[in-house]
Amino acid sequence: MTEVVHAAWLPDDAFAAIGSRRVVVAGDGALTGTVAEEVAAATKRFGGGFSRLEVGDGVADAELVLTLAPSSGEPVEALVVSTTSATDPTADESFRFTREAGAVVVQAPNDAGLLHGLFHVVRLGEAAFDGPDADETHAPATDLRMLDHWDNVYAHPTTGQVERGYSGGSIFYDDGLVRRDLARVERYARLLAAVGINHVAINNVNVHEHEARLLTDDLGDVVRLAAVFRRWGIRVHLSVSFASPILLGGLSTADPLDQNVAHWWVRVAARVWGAIPDLGGFVVMADADGGPDPFTYGRTHADGANMLAAAVEPYDGLIHWRAFVRDHRQDWRDRSTDRARTTYDHLRPLDGTFSDNVVVQVKYGPLDFQVREPLSPVLAAMPRTRVALELQVTQEYTGQQQHAVYLGPQWSQLLGFRFWDPDGRDDGSPTVADLATGRGKAAEDPGTGTWHKPAGGFAAVSNVGDDEFWTGHPFAQANLYAYGRLCWDPTLDPGAVLDEWVGLTFPGAPDAVGQAVHAVLDRSWETYEQYTAPLGVGFMVRPDHHYGPDVDGYEYTPWGAYHFADRDGIGVDRTVRTGTGYAGQYPAPWSAIYESPSTCPDALLLFFHHVPYTHVLHSGKTVIQHIYDTHFEGVSQVEAMIGAWSAASKLVDPRVSERVSERLAEQLRSATEWRDQVNTYFLRKSGIPDERGRRIY
Amino acid sequence: MTEVVHAAWLPDDAFAAIGSRRVVVAGDGALTGTVAEEVAAATKRFGGGFSRLEVGDGVADAELVLTLAPSSGEPVEALVVSTTSATDPTADESFRFTREAGAVVVQAPNDAGLLHGLFHVVRLGEAAFDGPDADETHAPATDLRMLDHWDNVYAHPTTGQVERGYSGGSIFYDDGLVRRDLARVERYARLLAAVGINHVAINNVNVHEHEARLLTDDLGDVVRLAAVFRRWGIRVHLSVSFASPILLGGLSTADPLDQNVAHWWVRVAARVWGAIPDLGGFVVMADADGGPDPFTYGRTHADGANMLAAAVEPYDGLIHWRAFVRDHRQDWRDRSTDRARTTYDHLRPLDGTFSDNVVVQVKYGPLDFQVREPLSPVLAAMPRTRVALELQVTQEYTGQQQHAVYLGPQWSQLLGFRFWDPDGRDDGSPTVADLATGRGKAAEDPGTGTWHKPAGGFAAVSNVGDDEFWTGHPFAQANLYAYGRLCWDPTLDPGAVLDEWVGLTFPGAPDAVGQAVHAVLDRSWETYEQYTAPLGVGFMVRPDHHYGPDVDGYEYTPWGAYHFADRDGIGVDRTVRTGTGYAGQYPAPWSAIYESPSTCPDALLLFFHHVPYTHVLHSGKTVIQHIYDTHFEGVSQVEAMIGAWSAASKLVDPRVSERVSERLAEQLRSATEWRDQVNTYFLRKSGIPDERGRRIY
Repeated sequence: MTEVVHAAWLPDDAFAAIGSRRVVVAGDGALTGTVAEEVAAATKRFGGGFSRLEVGDGVADAELVLTLAPSSGEPVEALVVSTTSATDPTADESFRFTREAGAVVVQAPNDAGLLHGLFHVVRLGEAAFDGPDADETHAPATDLRMLDHWDNVYAHPTTGQVERGYSGGSIFYDDGLVRRDLARVERYARLLAAVGINHVAINNVNVHEHEARLLTDDLGDVVRLAAVFRRWGIRVHLSVSFASPILLGGLSTADPLDQNVAHWWVRVAARVWGAIPDLGGFVVMADADGGPDPFTYGRTHADGANMLAAAVEPYDGLIHWRAFVRDHRQDWRDRSTDRARTTYDHLRPLDGTFSDNVVVQVKYGPLDFQVREPLSPVLAAMPRTRVALELQVTQEYTGQQQHAVYLGPQWSQLLGFRFWDPDGRDDGSPTVADLATGRGKAAEDPGTGTWHKPAGGFAAVSNVGDDEFWTGHPFAQANLYAYGRLCWDPTLDPGAVLDEWVGLTFPGAPDAVGQAVHAVLDRSWETYEQYTAPLGVGFMVRPDHHYGPDVDGYEYTPWGAYHFADRDGIGVDRTVRTGTGYAGQYPAPWSAIYESPSTCPDALLLFFHHVPYTHVLHSGKTVIQHIYDTHFEGVSQVEAMIGAWSAASKLVDPRVSERVSERLAEQLRSATEWRDQVNTYFLRKSGIPDERGRRIY
Repeated sequence: MTEVVHAAWLPDDAFAAIGSRRVVVAGDGALTGTVAEEVAAATKRFGGGFSRLEVGDGVADAELVLTLAPSSGEPVEALVVSTTSATDPTADESFRFTREAGAVVVQAPNDAGLLHGLFHVVRLGEAAFDGPDADETHAPATDLRMLDHWDNVYAHPTTGQVERGYSGGSIFYDDGLVRRDLARVERYARLLAAVGINHVAINNVNVHEHEARLLTDDLGDVVRLAAVFRRWGIRVHLSVSFASPILLGGLSTADPLDQNVAHWWVRVAARVWGAIPDLGGFVVMADADGGPDPFTYGRTHADGANMLAAAVEPYDGLIHWRAFVRDHRQDWRDRSTDRARTTYDHLRPLDGTFSDNVVVQVKYGPLDFQVREPLSPVLAAMPRTRVALELQVTQEYTGQQQHAVYLGPQWSQLLGFRFWDPDGRDDGSPTVADLATGRGKAAEDPGTGTWHKPAGGFAAVSNVGDDEFWTGHPFAQANLYAYGRLCWDPTLDPGAVLDEWVGLTFPGAPDAVGQAVHAVLDRSWETYEQYTAPLGVGFMVRPDHHYGPDVDGYEYTPWGAYHFADRDGIGVDRTVRTGTGYAGQYPAPWSAIYESPSTCPDALLLFFHHVPYTHVLHSGKTVIQHIYDTHFEGVSQVEAMIGAWSAASKLVDPRVSERVSERLAEQLRSATEWRDQVNTYFLRKSGIPDERGRRIY
């Protein structure tokens, strides 16, 4: 564990506005206590006043109020709300924010809402107290705002301590055990609470032998972690191995329809929830690396998930069923099969057969978190199933926290996509966020005529480790921040979210800092796309580590991630008419839009079509010239990012400044390598020179 | 350790001819005792007679004789030789073999020669006793016939227990220690002695932290291993880290010109040779993975090697200086640099500056054990230096003991190559074997007018592990066998060596077995070449594991192994006129032969030249058609190998048969993958269809 840990978006100074005021915290519930502690510390630091009214101090049983006077000298009164309090983050987490003559009151029906309200005021800072009188109610878009950790208890020989971890070791585990000192976990839980995360899975979904025992022998360690997160309104989930009845229970099968297997899980659930009554549930990888899964026994996803769901149902436990169906056996010679199709092909027939406490967790795109993919059609294809949208905060395919890539704009675009709308205007049809949260406007479904969707919420893999800055690249903190905020409200503008992050992370810094961060991050997602795989074609990375370029890296593998570049053209024909038929998995109008190269968006052209290098894009450029131009442009953008940062870097903590500068230098090196390899590959293959005569090797 | 271990080329039945005779072993010396034990066991088993005459039993002090009567009933007499005996494998290892009226006598000036003579008779079997009277003297071509083990004491996270090991774990080490039970090591030493190996390095030349301690704390373990090998006339060598003074000695530098460093090595050598007086010496990787080397301190290879040489010189110790100079920092964009040049560029200026007990160990080719490379010009460029030729018994780039590839023909071709002779006829100029052994005919060196060469001998990496068959593929035993035999006599015909191996390994088997083995192995090297990288271009393997195909796997890496294929052509221009100049590192006439595509052998064309796909080879085919034809032909050859083996497979031990069949099936799968990937890659790139219209994807 690094001694010095960066404060991320909760430095002491972020509490200046609250801390300089006179504050009353009223009501009970464990999280009200957490709120009171935060306020007490802040007011002590910044010279404000603090009062704590508990039940009995003239406060009725049902009061949960945070009252902030405009300044420490003025009187305050506690308002009274008439709901009961309870530490249950899956209960109503809303809060009411009122401002009257500069005095702010936050009221909440439950203590979790009070905590969210506190951090709302923190985010607003002085602005919370400025402006006209206000009366607003805030509530999250969904009560399933989850972060998954792919941390291994033991460092795994292949995947290391944290699978797809780019920020050092695990903050939970060290040397095969849960850490003795959980102080840093506490700080982490606080950071997550401040952005609205309320569920955390604490171990890798690829459950190895040692991690399986968290369910049994090592349950005491889970109890300790759950206690820390509980103080911040976060429920802990465990990733479990579907093979546990064999690995841990001594059974000879894990067949979900075997009664002994089902009974084993019932007994395990009783024991686990006996120890942790508010455990969130289990996360299960449907098609984990090795080991038996439902298919081993000729069962379906639903058979497997529902058996587990029955075991955890008495405790309000959830089963997150991670529906990542890989087809390891795809043959690059056979262009009729298509990995992009597999999840839909497997899951769509099962719509309506999953139990109510099963959440099917689906990656946002049909492949694997590429910088550009179309939305997974599964999200639109299971109206009677709770489907969670899975994003990837850890930057596996977007620069691995060596590159500054702010993913807020990508997520915002994904969340706002409308499957039944050709132009993205708000026509009342559900967005992807609506499909995940079940809370969008009712709209006509071309299939059923009505639209109602059970909620699956959001999930994502964390990007945090025991690195000094939590996330390797200090700016990668902004991705974790944005993920939490977009879970709470998917309609937030990602630029405004970045402003929040800058304001909290660099409190009091000159405007130039925020401007520099924006200059680096605003277009960083597109910049990364520019210098890597073009036009949605995906997968030009080195196999295994997935970092640097290798244009043919996956081309002749069994992994189903091909681009089929030859001397004439490139791309994957996924049309219904002549290709794999994947485009037909979308509802109208997108099935038709994607089907034709003349309507398919440029950004996804090579995902859906194999075209000649001389094909002219909507942009007016040929594909080959687009490749050259974007790759030169991408590197120029990184140079501009470095320029923008160098001026402002002296205005922040030199440790932050130095780390950012180091990473930007590596980003430039890597982007240059991408540019040169990709351009050289396509020049060698196409023989078509760059119109502008730039250097290609 | 596998319980059941295959007898390899020393099954009991291989001793039938000796064991059925009446044998006298006379003389002393430890290895004479080993010979006596072998003979006693064999005669007991097969009903012959055995007498042991030691000094005092009417035998003079200097007698070392093995006398084998034509049958057990007839009288024998011990002959007397007049040299002294000593257990010193680096002393004269020759033996005299006489046959008179069916009685065989082996005499040797030293007991090591007696041991070699015993195995000579074992190899001949009944043929030893047949035929006309004979009087032959046999002596090895060099007294440096070395096998290197790249075994790690601890399984290394990246390289595993045995670096480039394809036969399971180490036979020496388990669980971080030298094995308690060294019975298998004893069997291994016996196998090596039977093929003439007399030096073994027992640990990986990439010396990791734990292995470094073999030199100090764990020296007792080396003592135990040395005792086992000593019984078989084999001296043990230790790989040591150049950084040892820092790692083990607490010094702040490993600078070879620092007196403290030199003194540290002097003290270590005194201690090590105190414990193992016949230790062979140290093996050092000049440019090991990480850690300081002479270049770190601005010193040369010679500075580093000579400092160590001075420390071990009092004990007749050798320093094997592994001159593998890698240039990690090569840039694929820069076609003027050339990894192939580096070893020559570094070493040639140092010729004559190495101490007499330094052996500079050079890989046979300038790159890295590819299936086809030109001979390293370093071998011809250091007339005043002991240069060892390094071969690779472990099949890193030749199918990793999954593929049946008999390397005898490759090694024979390499050993017979003449740097100063254009057509390979015996013109009296030295062969590569002569350069390594220093024992060829004297001949004119274009440089000096005379030719005399200090001997460096041979070295190779072992292919043995704790696998049931020692080598994974049972037929890979033949490579270890052939390596030993060719070290003893580089002029042996590899087909005849294979006959020996078959005769010993399958004693008494029908002729069909030998025919099948020949059908599988005789052309197997060329077959492997056919379905992998064409025309000497090298490196189309997956990085890291180096097994399956990845045509562009190294193309854009810093490793300097490129093919520069574009839509028009392929190959590396290494000419003096327009390329990297590498061809000029050869003496005439080969510098000129390689310089021109019109004289360069087809097999190496793409190593030396970048040519269009339509370039016509000496064979009359275009390059592209050659690629297609060889790849289809290679797979057909593997199918033929399977056919040849299937008939004979019932005639041998079913365990052997099954393992061979499994591996052949994998070879066919892999060869098919190679064929399809390589052909598809070049069809996509060149656009030139196969003349014969075969299926390319």
